[in-house]
Amino acid sequence: VTGHVALVGAGPGDPELLTLRAVKALAVADIVFYDALVAEAALAHAPRAQKFCVGKRARRPSLSQEAIHSLLVRAARRGKRVVRLKGGDPFVFGRGGEEALALCAAGIPFDVVPGVSSAFAAPGLAGIPVTHRSLSSALAVVSGHAESAWRPVLSRLEPGTATIVVLMGLRSRAAVARALLDRGWAAPTPAAVVRGASTENQGRWLGTLAELAAARPDEDDAGAPGTVVVGGVVALAGRLRPSAEPEAARSEAATGGRADAR
Amino acid sequence: VTGHVALVGAGPGDPELLTLRAVKALAVADIVFYDALVAEAALAHAPRAQKFCVGKRARRPSLSQEAIHSLLVRAARRGKRVVRLKGGDPFVFGRGGEEALALCAAGIPFDVVPGVSSAFAAPGLAGIPVTHRSLSSALAVVSGHAESAWRPVLSRLEPGTATIVVLMGLRSRAAVARALLDRGWAAPTPAAVVRGASTENQGRWLGTLAELAAARPDEDDAGAPGTVVVGGVVALAGRLRPSAEPEAARSEAATGGRADAR
Repeated sequence: VTGHVALVGAGPGDPELLTLRAVKALAVADIVFYDALVAEAALAHAPRAQKFCVGKRARRPSLSQEAIHSLLVRAARRGKRVVRLKGGDPFVFGRGGEEALALCAAGIPFDVVPGVSSAFAAPGLAGIPVTHRSLSSALAVVSGHAESAWRPVLSRLEPGTATIVVLMGLRSRAAVARALLDRGWAAPTPAAVVRGASTENQGRWLGTLAELAAARPDEDDAGAPGTVVVGGVVALAGRLRPSAEPEAARSEAATGGRADAR
Repeated sequence: VTGHVALVGAGPGDPELLTLRAVKALAVADIVFYDALVAEAALAHAPRAQKFCVGKRARRPSLSQEAIHSLLVRAARRGKRVVRLKGGDPFVFGRGGEEALALCAAGIPFDVVPGVSSAFAAPGLAGIPVTHRSLSSALAVVSGHAESAWRPVLSRLEPGTATIVVLMGLRSRAAVARALLDRGWAAPTPAAVVRGASTENQGRWLGTLAELAAARPDEDDAGAPGTVVVGGVVALAGRLRPSAEPEAARSEAATGGRADAR
């Protein structure tokens, strides 16, 4: 009797951005292993399941990746229907590939339920279309946590040839801005930081590449994930104000000189 | 009495990859304007609505973008709750930004419902994690339809520094492969073509960058959208075989020398 594991993307935060397939997987789950950023309300779709947070929480560190693999494999071997619920999409900076390989190696059947990635949804919900006719038809998506990965890409990109999205980009924003300016990107290139996309704490900072290093979008909330966006499309954010964002986001008080109330 | 427009991402094809928020918007819609690639079953979530296809269909051309703007604005001005249902995510190569600007200009309230983008879901459902520790932590996402946009990016990227995803990439695969080989990417770099991601017609071709130009993943289905993926992560596709793909995709007959039955 072997169980089954679903590697499920939970989307950027708002539980309404779960897919129907994610909800179905949760509804029949016996056990859910979830990341720290997954919303409580998403877990409510799994009423039958035992639920375990395997991400970083309060002052306790996250489990090692190997420990997570072991939990998934052991639960499936006990015949359980397991959901591994991950923020965004499981295969976009989510280490889902490692979990999938571990399941393959153990002979555990699994499937992948793609999710809405913050790479596109964070800009989009902040009024920034990552592509836009005449402004950008190419994207570079990197993680701020991996300088050895973002630097070779960003230091090559010709100025203005792509919209740049830096996931988990708050801490690296000064270094990213420096790399782009050094590469010849213009100082007035529009730049944004989107925090807590799709949650009630959503906020955005709008400015320029020259100002990005000094942006203070995170004074009150250093732990919140932030998505940095650079490129001409960011200029549209000033004109596009979707009406149905969470009220808190729209009425957000400015946290820095140019943080934006929406 | 002004209505409202929701710009809604329908995901890559499988109606189960609609988000809960998309389903809610459809449930209350009076009118739905949908693209050609949106599944019938997705439209079934809008039982009350009149439904109009504004995309390319059979031999009839799609409406102009301006005509679509006009339809959205007029319907909203008649007080209707309008859903503009677009494949993938509305702001990722979807021209949703143009529609949003038109709505802003007309003073029509709107919101954006992000969707699951094929940029990540097509590779993911084919067993390719677009990022993977030690293989890739950066992505370049381009459209095959826009050579003037993809060429400046792909001709700069240092070999192996990012996973490359080319949406609508079937027709341009030879030119993309040439550009990367000219830039110094190694001929054996793994490459894939994913067609009809998440639909019952899903199929994948796996090969190398050197073979990509001659790939025949689309003999029977030249009109289906195809996503080209290039990079070390593609090598994982041979090991990762999610179990819950549509049956038709898993049992697919090979359409070319290396097309892959899964």
